[in-house]
Amino acid sequence: MKNYFSSSFKLGVLGGGQLGRMLLSETKKLDIYTAILDPNEAAPCAKICNEFHCGDLLDYDTVYQFGKQVDLLTIEIENVNIDALDALAAEGLPIYPKPENLRIIQSKADQKSFYEKNDIPTAPFKRFDTLQALQTAVENAEVTLPFVWKAARFGYDGNGVKIIRQASDLNNLTPDACIAENLVPFKNELAVIVARNASGALTTYPVVEMEFHPEANQVEYVICPARIDTKVAEKARNIALQVANAFDFVGLLAVEMFQTENDEILVNEVAPRTHNSGHYSIEASYTSQFEQHLRSILDLPLGKTDSKLAGIMVNLVGAEGHSGDVYYENLESILEIDGVSPHIYGKKHTKPFRKMGHVTIVHEDVNEARKIAQEVKETIKVISK
Amino acid sequence: MKNYFSSSFKLGVLGGGQLGRMLLSETKKLDIYTAILDPNEAAPCAKICNEFHCGDLLDYDTVYQFGKQVDLLTIEIENVNIDALDALAAEGLPIYPKPENLRIIQSKADQKSFYEKNDIPTAPFKRFDTLQALQTAVENAEVTLPFVWKAARFGYDGNGVKIIRQASDLNNLTPDACIAENLVPFKNELAVIVARNASGALTTYPVVEMEFHPEANQVEYVICPARIDTKVAEKARNIALQVANAFDFVGLLAVEMFQTENDEILVNEVAPRTHNSGHYSIEASYTSQFEQHLRSILDLPLGKTDSKLAGIMVNLVGAEGHSGDVYYENLESILEIDGVSPHIYGKKHTKPFRKMGHVTIVHEDVNEARKIAQEVKETIKVISK
Repeated sequence: MKNYFSSSFKLGVLGGGQLGRMLLSETKKLDIYTAILDPNEAAPCAKICNEFHCGDLLDYDTVYQFGKQVDLLTIEIENVNIDALDALAAEGLPIYPKPENLRIIQSKADQKSFYEKNDIPTAPFKRFDTLQALQTAVENAEVTLPFVWKAARFGYDGNGVKIIRQASDLNNLTPDACIAENLVPFKNELAVIVARNASGALTTYPVVEMEFHPEANQVEYVICPARIDTKVAEKARNIALQVANAFDFVGLLAVEMFQTENDEILVNEVAPRTHNSGHYSIEASYTSQFEQHLRSILDLPLGKTDSKLAGIMVNLVGAEGHSGDVYYENLESILEIDGVSPHIYGKKHTKPFRKMGHVTIVHEDVNEARKIAQEVKETIKVISK
Repeated sequence: MKNYFSSSFKLGVLGGGQLGRMLLSETKKLDIYTAILDPNEAAPCAKICNEFHCGDLLDYDTVYQFGKQVDLLTIEIENVNIDALDALAAEGLPIYPKPENLRIIQSKADQKSFYEKNDIPTAPFKRFDTLQALQTAVENAEVTLPFVWKAARFGYDGNGVKIIRQASDLNNLTPDACIAENLVPFKNELAVIVARNASGALTTYPVVEMEFHPEANQVEYVICPARIDTKVAEKARNIALQVANAFDFVGLLAVEMFQTENDEILVNEVAPRTHNSGHYSIEASYTSQFEQHLRSILDLPLGKTDSKLAGIMVNLVGAEGHSGDVYYENLESILEIDGVSPHIYGKKHTKPFRKMGHVTIVHEDVNEARKIAQEVKETIKVISK
């Protein structure tokens, strides 16, 4: 085994947001020297990593030069320059997840084609090179309303996704490549995190339920375990494994899925990294997703993914009508409740719907945990003052 | 409530060792700006706190000037300049634990007198201003062999404590103030961590068992819950509360106790801070001792101290015969075992018996956890190569 701990080994991470920040908790626990590249001087990781580099993650030279200074490279955001990763990989730098996986996953259109090609169930879709081409297809009734428009690239947290009920809903969307996906009625949105190390060891976390904010299209609650039939859960876990195997993936892969009204599982999209749907694992699981990510990319044995307790995550997003220096109103009130752990991401400024932190609730009973989560959600407010 | 989170509030910590390092995990989770003072430029906290100050913790001016720059002051080591703390407190700086508590606790002799005065059960003892005075008392048979010699000040990890079986065992000990304590036969060494916030909320963690290395007099295993009769555990918790109340303590107080052969509980000594006996809480408890320390000194509601699972901590100390750059041999082997979490403190150099890290084992069954802990202990080696 390479000596990663208290040694000269240097781990490089592309991206220094909250996911990187939570990863740093684990690199510190194991004393793994960590360098971070992020375009934002005030990124959540900037002041607390061993080495911070400020630069554009989509710029070839910046990513390449950063990669030359580290012993192994990983990501906390998938929108990075893949050509630079290809060049680094060709020169022998270990990069996990693999650049070829990232290239496919960066594009929602290529992702969908990948699922189709690998017999992975997903909602029917059509690809378009431009918004204009989609608009023409709608005019010609080659695409039937309603449907879901998704930008092929650079979507996040509900940006880049829109339900199209009439042709005019397409106005003002980005003009670039996109897909039109059938609007599939579903009962639940589910997610499964898969981890696989370079030696091929493979493990899945339990299936979680994601409850969305109806307006912002952001996850409001993540519930582990999902309150679904065990057969459906088993099916979801198997499909997540199928996706990871199809990619020959190394690292952590979050597979988001729909449970349809007749209990089919359709893959929605994947994230090739630690994921909001796995934050509950810090308090609730034997092994947190961040530790598991490290274990997978460093080819260490994977940790146990079972839960110690039921876990629910509540996202803390900026309240509407508030922009400016952040204040966490009633934070002390939620600390009065047993099993409640707030995580503050260190962003100084709030704005409506900005992800500012999350709160984990653990309890022996998932339904009790869900009630407490509601109370937490209704109590704490992310405001400016 | 003061706004501690993502704000201009500055927490100061005297000491930047591994306890400070684990505390920083929690200040980061809550985004509390943290400044650290430590004499060692390469202290485990040096590179990962918001602000690192290098300086002598026993120097009046250094501690006073550091205190002037922070909004609230706490410690991770009790050997600090108390006169400076008194001056800062007189000027209105909140300091927890309180300087008057630290002054008593810094001296094992004053601690013992404090227990005696407050009717807290402790082993009988005599105080001596110098080693010479003790030697004279032994010669005059005013102190009966065998007994336990303890330096009044600056002992740690078994340094400053010695069983005296014959007068010559006193040779080469430090010449300063000391106590001679009766050698009480005991079944178990126990510890209870108490937390109390400024508003007076009070809570105790479960009683833990400490198993010591027979030679180095260092804790090898901490076992939670202690495998003792519930009535004895109840008695130990109550005595720990009695100690915290006698001090009118604010912060975290670790109370170390002996369980005698007839199930009496005798207080051995206290540590006014997070403690090795509470490291298991990071993985095993609803609230880790480090988070609880923050909650108590910031006068936030205290967290639930129950365990999610049984937890055992194994200290990782430098192997005998090895001094130099550290290598954690077989670390990957222990990662293969479910429920095993290593913590590496970030010290680059190992030497025999130096505390380099710890490993936590969680399991539903404490006896199974104890078996795994043994396996961990026998597998991983802290060596140089």
